[in-house]
Amino acid sequence: MEDLGIIDVQNEKPENEIELEKVGVEGLKKFVLIKRPNNTYHIIAIINSYITLPSNLRGAHMSRFIESINDIPAEANSIEELAEIISKNVLNRHELDCYTEVSSDLPFERVRPSGEKESAVATMFARFSTKGNKKSVGVSVTGVLACPCAKEMCGGLTHNQRGVLTIEIDTSQNSIELLDVVDIGQQSFSAPTFSLLKRPEEKEIVEKIHKNPKFVEDVVRSCVQSLKEKYPGRYCRAKCVSFESIHDHNACSEWSGVL
Amino acid sequence: MEDLGIIDVQNEKPENEIELEKVGVEGLKKFVLIKRPNNTYHIIAIINSYITLPSNLRGAHMSRFIESINDIPAEANSIEELAEIISKNVLNRHELDCYTEVSSDLPFERVRPSGEKESAVATMFARFSTKGNKKSVGVSVTGVLACPCAKEMCGGLTHNQRGVLTIEIDTSQNSIELLDVVDIGQQSFSAPTFSLLKRPEEKEIVEKIHKNPKFVEDVVRSCVQSLKEKYPGRYCRAKCVSFESIHDHNACSEWSGVL
Amino acid sequence: MEDLGIIDVQNEKPENEIELEKVGVEGLKKFVLIKRPNNTYHIIAIINSYITLPSNLRGAHMSRFIESINDIPAEANSIEELAEIISKNVLNRHELDCYTEVSSDLPFERVRPSGEKESAVATMFARFSTKGNKKSVGVSVTGVLACPCAKEMCGGLTHNQRGVLTIEIDTSQNSIELLDVVDIGQQSFSAPTFSLLKRPEEKEIVEKIHKNPKFVEDVVRSCVQSLKEKYPGRYCRAKCVSFESIHDHNACSEWSGVL
Amino acid sequence: MEDLGIIDVQNEKPENEIELEKVGVEGLKKFVLIKRPNNTYHIIAIINSYITLPSNLRGAHMSRFIESINDIPAEANSIEELAEIISKNVLNRHELDCYTEVSSDLPFERVRPSGEKESAVATMFARFSTKGNKKSVGVSVTGVLACPCAKEMCGGLTHNQRGVLTIEIDTSQNSIELLDVVDIGQQSFSAPTFSLLKRPEEKEIVEKIHKNPKFVEDVVRSCVQSLKEKYPGRYCRAKCVSFESIHDHNACSEWSGVL
Repeated sequence: MEDLGIIDVQNEKPENEIELEKVGVEGLKKFVLIKRPNNTYHIIAIINSYITLPSNLRGAHMSRFIESINDIPAEANSIEELAEIISKNVLNRHELDCYTEVSSDLPFERVRPSGEKESAVATMFARFSTKGNKKSVGVSVTGVLACPCAKEMCGGLTHNQRGVLTIEIDTSQNSIELLDVVDIGQQSFSAPTFSLLKRPEEKEIVEKIHKNPKFVEDVVRSCVQSLKEKYPGRYCRAKCVSFESIHDHNACSEWSGVL
Repeated sequence: MEDLGIIDVQNEKPENEIELEKVGVEGLKKFVLIKRPNNTYHIIAIINSYITLPSNLRGAHMSRFIESINDIPAEANSIEELAEIISKNVLNRHELDCYTEVSSDLPFERVRPSGEKESAVATMFARFSTKGNKKSVGVSVTGVLACPCAKEMCGGLTHNQRGVLTIEIDTSQNSIELLDVVDIGQQSFSAPTFSLLKRPEEKEIVEKIHKNPKFVEDVVRSCVQSLKEKYPGRYCRAKCVSFESIHDHNACSEWSGVL
Repeated sequence: MEDLGIIDVQNEKPENEIELEKVGVEGLKKFVLIKRPNNTYHIIAIINSYITLPSNLRGAHMSRFIESINDIPAEANSIEELAEIISKNVLNRHELDCYTEVSSDLPFERVRPSGEKESAVATMFARFSTKGNKKSVGVSVTGVLACPCAKEMCGGLTHNQRGVLTIEIDTSQNSIELLDVVDIGQQSFSAPTFSLLKRPEEKEIVEKIHKNPKFVEDVVRSCVQSLKEKYPGRYCRAKCVSFESIHDHNACSEWSGVL
Repeated sequence: MEDLGIIDVQNEKPENEIELEKVGVEGLKKFVLIKRPNNTYHIIAIINSYITLPSNLRGAHMSRFIESINDIPAEANSIEELAEIISKNVLNRHELDCYTEVSSDLPFERVRPSGEKESAVATMFARFSTKGNKKSVGVSVTGVLACPCAKEMCGGLTHNQRGVLTIEIDTSQNSIELLDVVDIGQQSFSAPTFSLLKRPEEKEIVEKIHKNPKFVEDVVRSCVQSLKEKYPGRYCRAKCVSFESIHDHNACSEWSGVL
């Protein structure tokens, strides 16, 4: 192809010399292979990646983000690794600090009340910033909440509903096993949700949620308590949203801090 | 402004002379006033409008849709009327049949278990086709479903969840009062959902859903039965989606036919 | 686990004996392996599956849908095959006709203007009904549209925008290669969209869309014409939505019929 | 109704005594009247409201949020006022600090190239925290971006696309006129978007965007520069997302700081 030999518009001085905190691409989808000790699987990673643009440059070279994403290896060990490699590639190409977010579906196995295993799908995400090499990973998992207050008022009956719990943990010092976080998330609810529940299993789960009623506040606190035991000293964020069955709005609860 | 005096590209013969069923605009937002007997209120109407484009015309004049939408009166009696006026305006401008959909939030009042009223928001929509002057209107309302099967298995305890019921009714011959359909929709569930439930009210609703457990199938059938009584002979469609509390997928049920 | 020995609530006679057209599950996510001649990859399939419920049965046994989904083989050749297997499994378990939809991301390769390949992601879907064994498959792909009318008025300059083209084709008699449909979809636009465009490539694409301006109507007609040549006699549906750059609403065009 | 005379489960000591940063309700819809100097209109406000829950309380009394929302006056001057009143009502009822977000559609008028006015719809939002009485308001508006780099390479031709610009401004000390921010937002693009553009207007806009090409970086910097002149000394956040016509991902740019 021809050499365009043109002025580099991006490198011009901008009309307004203002530093921009985040300039980049959002929503780029990339098909990658994640290699795990026991299984290897493809995911569609959704990628956002940004540099901090100095006040004297008019624009970022956006194609460098895509080149940085294309240069990731065919196989990665985690989306955390992807976020780190992309950020470092971008830093190399731009000589500017980079922050990258990668999210994807996360296939996992859960054990039904019958003891049989079933495959399920959570959401996972990872963030990496070259400023201080800060890393974090997270997951979103679903579960059931049964209301403790209604149970008290209604002689054991209560309203119950599906909820979503999102957990993010700092991994700047040490990485963690995401499936452990999925597990902690599920155990923080009155009960996990399932795809297949045969009748005796449905009975078991309905009885379990009534024996173990939880507010959204309880779910987040249980979760934070379990995380404190497993990952003490790390920065963490946990939020639960409950799709209240008797209301047309949601209830929610959020914590952030050092475990 | 200058007269462009140019070739009308839209009126050219297309490369491939194929009739197109629907050509038009989608997602146009318009601020309008709806005048009701007892109250008058503004809504943001979201409008899709389409003509059938003959095989010998390359393109529709898209700005005529917007002019047709701008020509609606400052006050309308319903979104059904809006869909009709827009469709007829488009027909006049294009001399081609037109099909228009209008949707919006629908403010309404519901009575809490305490007898007090509260304001609530459903979704409404209307459709009008100039081909045969076919009209329909519809609403989406939320409610609670408690599972009858789990109740039977668990000695009265059960899982329960929020659901959404969408009802569409043909109004080509006679229009209907949408708030009546909202009411029928809400009464089809184990109980309606509410914004405010003080404790004795929450108790009442929790007890009510346990006395009146319903599958998604029951909700749709109750709804269709009520509609048959009120609007016999009309074409109708009703669908309920239940956000199952113990599962991470939804259950659903749908009916369509002549009431 | 205990035998519950309970009344089968689903098999009770319903209060309102009305046949329901579609009863089932929606939004179930399943991790599966798709085996293709040249590569094999995992996808997250999103599954909706429904039976027609006779008037004399109160409810569908929802867990049978999940069992039917769990019984799909570990490896399938396509999501079309998945939709068919699930539908037939459900028919066997319920002895009632079943309709299933499966959708997923579709990884594919496209050739950049430079001749290099890049990986990309489209969306694919498949439908199967046991009533008459009707099958169809489809894809959604993105592309660029440049406005022919503005080009004419503005001395060669024009507005241009991203669009999405969704194509569904009947495959009841013969299956098709989905990547061919992706290709036809991309070629129907003024130009395909890309992830990476280095400067000479960006120049080539910008020039190409100005040489090849297209209305949404042109995109759909080009697409239908290409499909007529490749798949004559089949039922098909094609819709293009254009995210107009100079408007805050979208333009769209749709065709359906026998190719 | 009966007095339930029961234990207050929310006031129990929680199993895990952890302070929760945000506990409350999300997605509550409320129909309200906004009174402006020149016109008065209804909106559907979507409300999120949260308290900070001390470590010694098991749960928030969620119904108090709804009561606090119901106690807003029938007419408000702005959604900023709504966020403030709700937060203060919640603080009164809970004796705990409260943070509230209110968002809604924002009807406004814009002047077409012909000089005629047309009605349009942006999005607005407001935030209020009782901790330090911190307030902010914001809007999201659409506009067109034409790429300066492609224009340089392609002899004046370029790719162009719709973008969304979101601006949030601190109003703790003084409130501002949101329509002024809408105006600044629209003027920051290569051109605003419109609903109706007759041919000479479409020509004018297409020529305008080619004379005034802008990167997402330029849009944000223009915007920040205009805001610096109008609202010096205030904290502000501005983000532009551009739905790139030739790519299937988006470009974006973000700034935050004191103007």
